[in-house]
Amino acid sequence: MRIAVVGLGLIGGSMLRAVAAAGHETHGYDTDPATRAMARTAAGQARPANRWHVSASASEAATNADLVVLAVPWPAVAGVVDELASSGFSGLVTDVTSVKGPVRDVINDRWRRSGMSLAGYVGGHPMAGRETAGFAAGDAKLFRGAAWALCLEPDETHIDDWLDVATLATSLGARVVPTTAAEHDAAVAAISHVPHLVATALMRIATDNPLALSLGAGSFHDGTRVAASPAELSAGMCGGNAAAVTACLTALADELDTAADALHSGDPIAALRTWFAPATAARRRWPPAPSLPADLPVQPDVLARLGRAGGWITGVSKDRRTVTAVRPAD
Amino acid sequence: MRIAVVGLGLIGGSMLRAVAAAGHETHGYDTDPATRAMARTAAGQARPANRWHVSASASEAATNADLVVLAVPWPAVAGVVDELASSGFSGLVTDVTSVKGPVRDVINDRWRRSGMSLAGYVGGHPMAGRETAGFAAGDAKLFRGAAWALCLEPDETHIDDWLDVATLATSLGARVVPTTAAEHDAAVAAISHVPHLVATALMRIATDNPLALSLGAGSFHDGTRVAASPAELSAGMCGGNAAAVTACLTALADELDTAADALHSGDPIAALRTWFAPATAARRRWPPAPSLPADLPVQPDVLARLGRAGGWITGVSKDRRTVTAVRPAD
Repeated sequence: MRIAVVGLGLIGGSMLRAVAAAGHETHGYDTDPATRAMARTAAGQARPANRWHVSASASEAATNADLVVLAVPWPAVAGVVDELASSGFSGLVTDVTSVKGPVRDVINDRWRRSGMSLAGYVGGHPMAGRETAGFAAGDAKLFRGAAWALCLEPDETHIDDWLDVATLATSLGARVVPTTAAEHDAAVAAISHVPHLVATALMRIATDNPLALSLGAGSFHDGTRVAASPAELSAGMCGGNAAAVTACLTALADELDTAADALHSGDPIAALRTWFAPATAARRRWPPAPSLPADLPVQPDVLARLGRAGGWITGVSKDRRTVTAVRPAD
Repeated sequence: MRIAVVGLGLIGGSMLRAVAAAGHETHGYDTDPATRAMARTAAGQARPANRWHVSASASEAATNADLVVLAVPWPAVAGVVDELASSGFSGLVTDVTSVKGPVRDVINDRWRRSGMSLAGYVGGHPMAGRETAGFAAGDAKLFRGAAWALCLEPDETHIDDWLDVATLATSLGARVVPTTAAEHDAAVAAISHVPHLVATALMRIATDNPLALSLGAGSFHDGTRVAASPAELSAGMCGGNAAAVTACLTALADELDTAADALHSGDPIAALRTWFAPATAARRRWPPAPSLPADLPVQPDVLARLGRAGGWITGVSKDRRTVTAVRPAD
């Protein structure tokens, strides 16, 4: 395949390296000239068979590409989609943005306006963030073992397009989770966006207390780790998923209110124990052990149920009739 | 010194090993017979010079001890204090409980009732928790590099008692932070107790969503890690520090409300960026680099200011007139 990666931060830079290492003809682009220079230098240091090209624009990178990977932050997505549409790009597009509904809306809107069809879009989200960022932090092995959400919208996503991206993602070592934009956005609000907000809130309430900062140990270290993420990225991902994040913040506030009520009950320790215990058990069971792999037929409803049940696929058969599926073991 | 350790969980079991390894005559006790048996077996496997004794009761362990370390969970503290008081113990007592005001109140109350003086108590809290627990998880090196809060209450704690415990804690590799029960309890609400509550709330809102649990990656892993802590311990430490935890939960809710307002402002991404950015900078500066060590005179007000400014001591001079002090570098 000829693959273009637009946006060469942590995820895009890792994609560039990984797809080039997997033997694809790979073209990258970033708006930042210094990042492009860094990517060119790194290409020169890679093994000849694993080298990538660095283009002068997104549309140049996308010329004749079978697949364009949008790896720009959410606020920059619309501009790149416009550029691809006006350059006449007609291949498949996927993205790695941490919100899926708004990206789908932008693509629907821009492509309809330009007269293109929506056929060639599969929303994706590799769950492979780090608190470091930028091209230099990229790693071809970043996706090994990582979950990679891949949207299969009923009556919208072409299954062949989905299988193309699923085949690529599993070839990079990811476990591909079939989902929809709406289900994805609700899930990542709970497991990524709200954890970023909470880590930041914990950091903010301790910042002006030097004694607290000197006593902070394991629970503070881990509880605030992602507060070190680039503010621009955190703001983009939470701001782009406002509805789901708001719902999840409300659920979190309700939980903390329950804990506060327990603190002021007649027997706070017993009441708190009842509140803590189910989460202790749930956290000790997480991540769930995987079941043995099994073949599943390539049918959108079967794949949707698999993802909703917490399962994923680790490969697509050569005849594209089955996928290798894994579920959480009971 | 002859040292008794009462309670042989993670912290007590680590203390037992560490003080025995430091050459002290060490006696341990735990209410759980299986834990005592495990501690006896482990003593037999230690090098002869580093062995400890396992006693049949707290008061037997404390007989003729220079120092008793209370390493039981907060709800069990009062019972052990009563037992020591009724056995006529008159040496120095310290503890490792994660709340200091309530322990101080219990000791004040019980010792006054029994006619003993408060002279021999120094509240302590080594910040060396792990999500694992129990004697088997103990480690003589657990305290190396860890902060160890040590209460120096104005007009109450004898400075000689404080120096005894500070000397022991620094000899185990800890950095001793002078503080008071009230300041400690407010600080640990922010850096430990509320992080435990938040980790649990994050786990509770994701538990029934298998898709979320399969997409959960780094931020969910770290943000929920301490939800796996034993529910009994988490409930005890939060329930024992109800006032400070409540204040801190209110501050956290205010921060999250500010974030929710930003999400619904005219320009959510810009508003959120303004909210995220100071915490990003603060988290990247944490933990602060230490200044070069310097000698400070042993004066309670000097030590109190050091702790309040985020500093700590790494040793006590042999003549006990100075301590080696370190501050956060500017």
